[in-house]
Amino acid sequence: MRREIAQQGAAAAATIQHGLRQCEQLRRLGHGRRHVLFVARGSSDNAAIYGRYLLEVCGGVQTALAAPSIATHYRADVDLSDTVVVSVSQSGETEEIVEAQAWARANGAATVAITNVAGSPLDDAADLTLLTQAGVERAVPATKTYTSQLAAVAVLASALSPQAGLENDLQRAVEEMDRLASPGAGVRQAVDLLAGTNAVVVTGRGLVYGTALEVALKLEETCLRPVRGLSYADLRHGPIAIVDSDVTAVLVAACEGPMLAGMVELAGDLRQRGATTLALGGGGELADACDHSVPGPDLPETVTPLALIVPGQLVVEALAGRLGLDADAPRGLSKVTQTDPERR
Amino acid sequence: MRREIAQQGAAAAATIQHGLRQCEQLRRLGHGRRHVLFVARGSSDNAAIYGRYLLEVCGGVQTALAAPSIATHYRADVDLSDTVVVSVSQSGETEEIVEAQAWARANGAATVAITNVAGSPLDDAADLTLLTQAGVERAVPATKTYTSQLAAVAVLASALSPQAGLENDLQRAVEEMDRLASPGAGVRQAVDLLAGTNAVVVTGRGLVYGTALEVALKLEETCLRPVRGLSYADLRHGPIAIVDSDVTAVLVAACEGPMLAGMVELAGDLRQRGATTLALGGGGELADACDHSVPGPDLPETVTPLALIVPGQLVVEALAGRLGLDADAPRGLSKVTQTDPERR
Repeated sequence: MRREIAQQGAAAAATIQHGLRQCEQLRRLGHGRRHVLFVARGSSDNAAIYGRYLLEVCGGVQTALAAPSIATHYRADVDLSDTVVVSVSQSGETEEIVEAQAWARANGAATVAITNVAGSPLDDAADLTLLTQAGVERAVPATKTYTSQLAAVAVLASALSPQAGLENDLQRAVEEMDRLASPGAGVRQAVDLLAGTNAVVVTGRGLVYGTALEVALKLEETCLRPVRGLSYADLRHGPIAIVDSDVTAVLVAACEGPMLAGMVELAGDLRQRGATTLALGGGGELADACDHSVPGPDLPETVTPLALIVPGQLVVEALAGRLGLDADAPRGLSKVTQTDPERR
Repeated sequence: MRREIAQQGAAAAATIQHGLRQCEQLRRLGHGRRHVLFVARGSSDNAAIYGRYLLEVCGGVQTALAAPSIATHYRADVDLSDTVVVSVSQSGETEEIVEAQAWARANGAATVAITNVAGSPLDDAADLTLLTQAGVERAVPATKTYTSQLAAVAVLASALSPQAGLENDLQRAVEEMDRLASPGAGVRQAVDLLAGTNAVVVTGRGLVYGTALEVALKLEETCLRPVRGLSYADLRHGPIAIVDSDVTAVLVAACEGPMLAGMVELAGDLRQRGATTLALGGGGELADACDHSVPGPDLPETVTPLALIVPGQLVVEALAGRLGLDADAPRGLSKVTQTDPERR
């Protein structure tokens, strides 16, 4: 897992370079279609959440996340003739995603696959594939395949909204991924902190909300402790009632953008309730408002997710080691995930 | 809270009767618009999740849940000229929902408000309001306002897809709400079970997924313990790795429909991992597969959520009493929720 964390900059760079050559095709495919619908699960779903915000914020394209069961279990007739359906699966063989893509096509959608495996069922059946260039990933927890999905999603947004000027920022994001792949000052302190707690909440909002969910998922599946990922808003609407001095809250933020002020204020509220607060990213302002901090990238909010997850992954990997667990092969998980076991 | 739980059948019946008179207007408003977008938070968001499945399954209308921050923080220009935006808020004065509705209108959407308060800002600014008929709700945890929102959402689905024949089933749902408002055999046993555990996961899928999330939210905010609501699929994709004998899993299901077989199988898997399993609904088949069960309604899956939440609420209310907590006014919550405190 550690080695694959370090390979992410190169994998993302290759994915971006490969994807940008398909921009013209992507534009043609999207022509006259006003909606984008992502289909994904797990880490791929967290990449799709980033895509959802990016396409709406930068492209003004109404974008949603599909409920795959609408396709696989209810087999509903939904008119998708004005929609591009983007299916995201590392292996390209998760059956419900493959099935949902076939359903989308039958209902009139144009289909884009984002997968790491050429010749996989998802690739074969798509109108167009953005192939991530992560190479073989050996560790079960997705790292470089996840960030390559983020890169592919950003290429898609760039193709559908060239005015957003994402291309240059993506080059900078790759540099920050490389820089952050060496564990910095805050990582060890974060591991010390998280090793001593059993009630962890990870929160974020907007473009980095998917990053917060990905940190939570990785912490949980790799370190085998219950960890909740919650949006800033959902946390405020109820669950904040149970925050007390037993809770460690991880606040995930970009170092700029319209979400930062609210996250800084949330840090103060959580500390007032007795929680221990750990900033992941958010620049100096959020670091000052929290008990501990792990520095993130110096990037525009729009491309921050590609690099902000890197120190998060380093924390997860080191924490698993500290807990005596095998980060590369967590208990109870396999590389190709299937939602419905009877389909295996 | 207990009294308001018992008032739900009458409140839903009045909401349905009131709403059905607006079907023609709703159809006119939706004419030529191919998408529905819900805007909501908290319990209202759980009602919107039901609406999302119902509209896609019964109506074939592509439906999504908005990320309110796209409106309130990013102020993105998203083309909504082919969309009906449905904003759900009990009080009708949650600022981010009111603001998101104004944004939707400015971006070309037709707007429908679902609120319990006539003359509220949300009502005033909407093209059309489905007014829930719950009367004043005194307890902080939403019960009759939540189920009235479900009723209003079902009326909307009925108006946009008259072929689905929801009207008759809604009458039956009201009868089941009344029948289930008297605590049955399983409630006390469920309270015994939940009082002795600190690791609770609530899971469901498809049309009752929102019900599972609502049970989780109510358990957490009323009984002040960490409770996770997870879809069946998200549970299988990672967090299932941490399920062991410390965990109590609540499985929420309708007594029929395409999700039931998977839930029965999940119950077996969770028990194999050592978890204690509690069925909420799901009929005899799920009850047999679980350690304990609380009977749910005898209804088609499409209208099950209106009545299935009722025994769930009874469990929550009784559990709070057992824990010595005030179910009517949980610590740290207020009736009108605002996401961003600086806006109060």
